[in-house]
Amino acid sequence: MSGILDGMRVVESSAFVAVPLAGMTLAQMGADVIRFDLPQGGMDYKRWPVTTSGESLFWAGMNKGKRSVALDVKCPRGREIAQEIICAPGEDAGLFITNLAAKGWTDYETLKARREDLCMVSLRGDRHGKPAVDYTVNPSLGFPMATGPEGSSDPVAHVLPAWDCIAGNMVVSGLLAAERARLRKGLGQFVDLTLKDAAAAMLGNLGIIGEVAVNGTDRAKAGNSLYGAYGQDFVCADGRRVMVIALTPRQWKNLMKVTGTEQDMGYLAARLGVDLMQEGVRWTYRAEITKVLAPWFSRRKVSEFSSDFDKGGVTWSQFRSFAQALREDPDLSTENPMFSEIEQPGIGRYRVPGSPFSFAGIAREAPRPAPQLGQHTEEVLADVAKLPEGEIGKLMDEGVAVQPRGDFRLAS
Amino acid sequence: MSGILDGMRVVESSAFVAVPLAGMTLAQMGADVIRFDLPQGGMDYKRWPVTTSGESLFWAGMNKGKRSVALDVKCPRGREIAQEIICAPGEDAGLFITNLAAKGWTDYETLKARREDLCMVSLRGDRHGKPAVDYTVNPSLGFPMATGPEGSSDPVAHVLPAWDCIAGNMVVSGLLAAERARLRKGLGQFVDLTLKDAAAAMLGNLGIIGEVAVNGTDRAKAGNSLYGAYGQDFVCADGRRVMVIALTPRQWKNLMKVTGTEQDMGYLAARLGVDLMQEGVRWTYRAEITKVLAPWFSRRKVSEFSSDFDKGGVTWSQFRSFAQALREDPDLSTENPMFSEIEQPGIGRYRVPGSPFSFAGIAREAPRPAPQLGQHTEEVLADVAKLPEGEIGKLMDEGVAVQPRGDFRLAS
Repeated sequence: MSGILDGMRVVESSAFVAVPLAGMTLAQMGADVIRFDLPQGGMDYKRWPVTTSGESLFWAGMNKGKRSVALDVKCPRGREIAQEIICAPGEDAGLFITNLAAKGWTDYETLKARREDLCMVSLRGDRHGKPAVDYTVNPSLGFPMATGPEGSSDPVAHVLPAWDCIAGNMVVSGLLAAERARLRKGLGQFVDLTLKDAAAAMLGNLGIIGEVAVNGTDRAKAGNSLYGAYGQDFVCADGRRVMVIALTPRQWKNLMKVTGTEQDMGYLAARLGVDLMQEGVRWTYRAEITKVLAPWFSRRKVSEFSSDFDKGGVTWSQFRSFAQALREDPDLSTENPMFSEIEQPGIGRYRVPGSPFSFAGIAREAPRPAPQLGQHTEEVLADVAKLPEGEIGKLMDEGVAVQPRGDFRLAS
Repeated sequence: MSGILDGMRVVESSAFVAVPLAGMTLAQMGADVIRFDLPQGGMDYKRWPVTTSGESLFWAGMNKGKRSVALDVKCPRGREIAQEIICAPGEDAGLFITNLAAKGWTDYETLKARREDLCMVSLRGDRHGKPAVDYTVNPSLGFPMATGPEGSSDPVAHVLPAWDCIAGNMVVSGLLAAERARLRKGLGQFVDLTLKDAAAAMLGNLGIIGEVAVNGTDRAKAGNSLYGAYGQDFVCADGRRVMVIALTPRQWKNLMKVTGTEQDMGYLAARLGVDLMQEGVRWTYRAEITKVLAPWFSRRKVSEFSSDFDKGGVTWSQFRSFAQALREDPDLSTENPMFSEIEQPGIGRYRVPGSPFSFAGIAREAPRPAPQLGQHTEEVLADVAKLPEGEIGKLMDEGVAVQPRGDFRLAS
């Protein structure tokens, strides 16, 4: 490891998307991230997608490069050891992130009694303490009712757990901000964040609250159109579908130029008596613009215009299924230095992303596989919790701490 | 200001979602964030939604709490001043984020010559230097083809610019990580990130690449069902639609209990010869489970079961339009301490979110309005760029630097 966060140690108690993603982001930046789970695995240990033999591709994806400790935190000694790991000394340690209920033995005040300068980030569902997941937060805020074909009244929920991904990255920011303050003032910190607030704030940030409160309007579905300017999907002669963007004046000019529609757009603007250089005008008259452009696309295969579009500075892309994207897009292949083929124990060899960040002067690291559950129990109990060898053996015998047998057991 | 990032100064050259969001996130954590724009405003200055008088609710939403400098960076002196602001001294300054082309005068090496320990984060479209926006990245990776009603072949793009929001939060993490390393080693840093890589990595993190590469399957549309376990939308007797989640064993048990469907689910499991306690089995037989539950919901109004659901530990929510959500959901009202009614010059008084983070011991700050374009030109030129008063006057006269007249002009 030689990442930007070298030397930092973070402990994670988590499940599903947000906090596992936060931990992995930190691990892929070079931090030593220790995730602890029950000996049978956490709630996300079998999360789909899974392989035919039931190994979770999701779990493998979300826990790359971490150390895994399997501890029975349902018994007092297991909880105590977890607290020792969380609060272990070290200038760049004492950092804890969780999206499980931060109460009882993982309550901040309880942990703080063990380490005064602990920095902890707790991600909860909502501010009332009620459970909330991406699939419930999203409908409650309105996005599905504004998604999908124009005129339809059926809500369409997104498939990407977007709010989880956003909140997970916020957990990283919150932790780094808290640790920054600790470094300057020596004080620990408790950071509280809820999935619903993270999402609700974006509703305001994007101007959607203003749209309702100030303009008195409710946004209607607009298919795949780019909101507020021009951007549209077109089906081409080869049956492929492309997305074309004219958000900025330059994008609009480039699009007209490569499709040779400048004159027709001029006629259209004259007929409507409007200035299509204005983004809001393009939005209002998007159907008319689309009528001018559609025949151009329907008569051409993507291969006939793709290089002209790239050379002509058009902002565009193709719609693809996941499998098609992996087959066709070099950015999803190992041609992209972010991706490597690695061996994930239990799953096999496949294409895995490393960190999307590139820090100058720090070589991009190939992604490290996810640990086997409990793979690092012994070493963490010895090196971090500083338990004597005899006690570790006893905990293993009692099943309080578990390490998988086989290649992963440390030589001692 | 008394935020967790107190004392930090960040300069932003940006447009649209990701980097403006990053800057605002930092500003709402207490950093002094200076955004500079052309005197007529950046590419996002009129971004929709807009008020009836054309003021951008989007811009107001994305730039809260920042200082705004209006500079003509198309002329050499304007560029030089911008560089002076970016590279101005200060232990906690020398931090620059941008999603505009980081070349020429905002090239890292060029700026580094002015300030050796500059930390800069550049967010680009894709790794080839081609433009990419949320609306193009998303189709190219496959999500729209997996979104929407089961059986449909029409792609449905998300309305939330999810990749932008994710990448914006990553810009914050990247900057804080770089600054952390600078504090320890005294070295500056250039952080490179692309929108497409941020998105492509999530495709792997979520296990979707494994699904294709290892299992050889391509994910099909599944309506509003929660993928891989059980979660479904139901229309109730009052016409309202709810989302109900049974991802974990506890959520599944609670759902059966409050709907009194335990026995029927037992019959169903026996008939199918499966164990519905397994999440993957619930996913496979989701249509059958839905058939058992649908009549229960269709016979009841939401008001008849909502408090039982809450008491019974069901994870659920209601589908709402944006306007309905703002009307009905207390989490979107000023009852939620994250929201305040504030006066946004040019727009009026409305409900605005502050930071979703809560840091213990630091009082939640009410959101500060977005600046008027160029509102802080004079003070930043004087206090940060350290230009003498006479020169500032000259730059104003020449139109290189612009400050709006009226209330915002500094008394001098």
